[in-house]
Amino acid sequence: MTDVIDKLNWRYATKKFDATKKVDDAKLERILEAIRLAPTSSGLQPFEVLIVSNPELRAKIREVGWNQAQITDSSHLLVFAAWDNITEARVNMMFDMANEQRGEINEGWENYRKVLLGIVAERGEQANFDAAARQAYIALGVALVAAAFEGVDTTPMEGFDPAAVDQILSLKERNLRSVVILPIGYREADGDWLVDLKKVRRPRQQLVSEIA
Amino acid sequence: MTDVIDKLNWRYATKKFDATKKVDDAKLERILEAIRLAPTSSGLQPFEVLIVSNPELRAKIREVGWNQAQITDSSHLLVFAAWDNITEARVNMMFDMANEQRGEINEGWENYRKVLLGIVAERGEQANFDAAARQAYIALGVALVAAAFEGVDTTPMEGFDPAAVDQILSLKERNLRSVVILPIGYREADGDWLVDLKKVRRPRQQLVSEIA
Repeated sequence: MTDVIDKLNWRYATKKFDATKKVDDAKLERILEAIRLAPTSSGLQPFEVLIVSNPELRAKIREVGWNQAQITDSSHLLVFAAWDNITEARVNMMFDMANEQRGEINEGWENYRKVLLGIVAERGEQANFDAAARQAYIALGVALVAAAFEGVDTTPMEGFDPAAVDQILSLKERNLRSVVILPIGYREADGDWLVDLKKVRRPRQQLVSEIA
Repeated sequence: MTDVIDKLNWRYATKKFDATKKVDDAKLERILEAIRLAPTSSGLQPFEVLIVSNPELRAKIREVGWNQAQITDSSHLLVFAAWDNITEARVNMMFDMANEQRGEINEGWENYRKVLLGIVAERGEQANFDAAARQAYIALGVALVAAAFEGVDTTPMEGFDPAAVDQILSLKERNLRSVVILPIGYREADGDWLVDLKKVRRPRQQLVSEIA
């Protein structure tokens, strides 16, 4: 048993949040920092995280989110929104930033920039969005662990209408598309039907196999 | 600074592994257990993890993986392979297993089974695969953190031909499709061009914003 396994066993998809308890800023910032440090393909970080604190907007998102109470009752609502496309400008922004932060130009990295620009130009917008969305899920996985280490409950949720959320949050204008939302806060165990149910996972031998 | 942030800062996409150093079984099993405990949409865990220990197969994967040395030089090569489709049988397998592990049938969960069966039937194979692939990335994110806590280096890699890897590992016969591979092991800092370069990430304000 390690800390990570312990924390993964502690966490669960919280069904009922205590609407009176807020995650303090220091904890929130550490969860966001973990998201920021999550690795992504080619280091692009092809997504943004929106913290929706406007109550009217959260109520609207709940309406297009199967009326799930966590959207409005949680302490904070994080929306992971992937780049709608991986454009030349976005790739160059990240590679230029790497040069700037490192204070040097790495030749191998510059060669790879050219290769990557070719790949994203060829595969097109939908495939680029799909690839970007996957990266957001790496950060989601990291965020869930980071939150558990803070004693903060989370509910990763795909049960919402992404196009409707994009409209509510004006994401199209920012060239973003919502992919997954993450209410965070503190469980209200009374009235949470899931909290006491056994965590269900496939046995190791049904999930992992060796090709020897 | 928390442990998680510390570990995320420690890790990097290892470019050169020490081929003489093996990750011991206990560490490997703890990383796999973290993967197993990673949450997934509707609890489906719609992927498998293959540990490729056959050296000839690893050499073949390297050939279709941009000749990246980590594929053959790492201690272990993990392949995350998503379900090629989310079928009725697979959904029922997971819901039946939940009933069995919990020793009871939850009415809300049974109602949700019907809803989910309708969703996956309607959206079709490609969308189901895309959704399954995203879940594998949650587990990937969790695995990277778990490995870092074990002091184990990792290199998440998308730079390979998935169809070719599927063929090499006979994944089609198992109704799986490779989505991301993860060499794990121990860095050989000498000759790793990335190890001493500054980790580059977008500043917090470019990644996170509040909608108030």
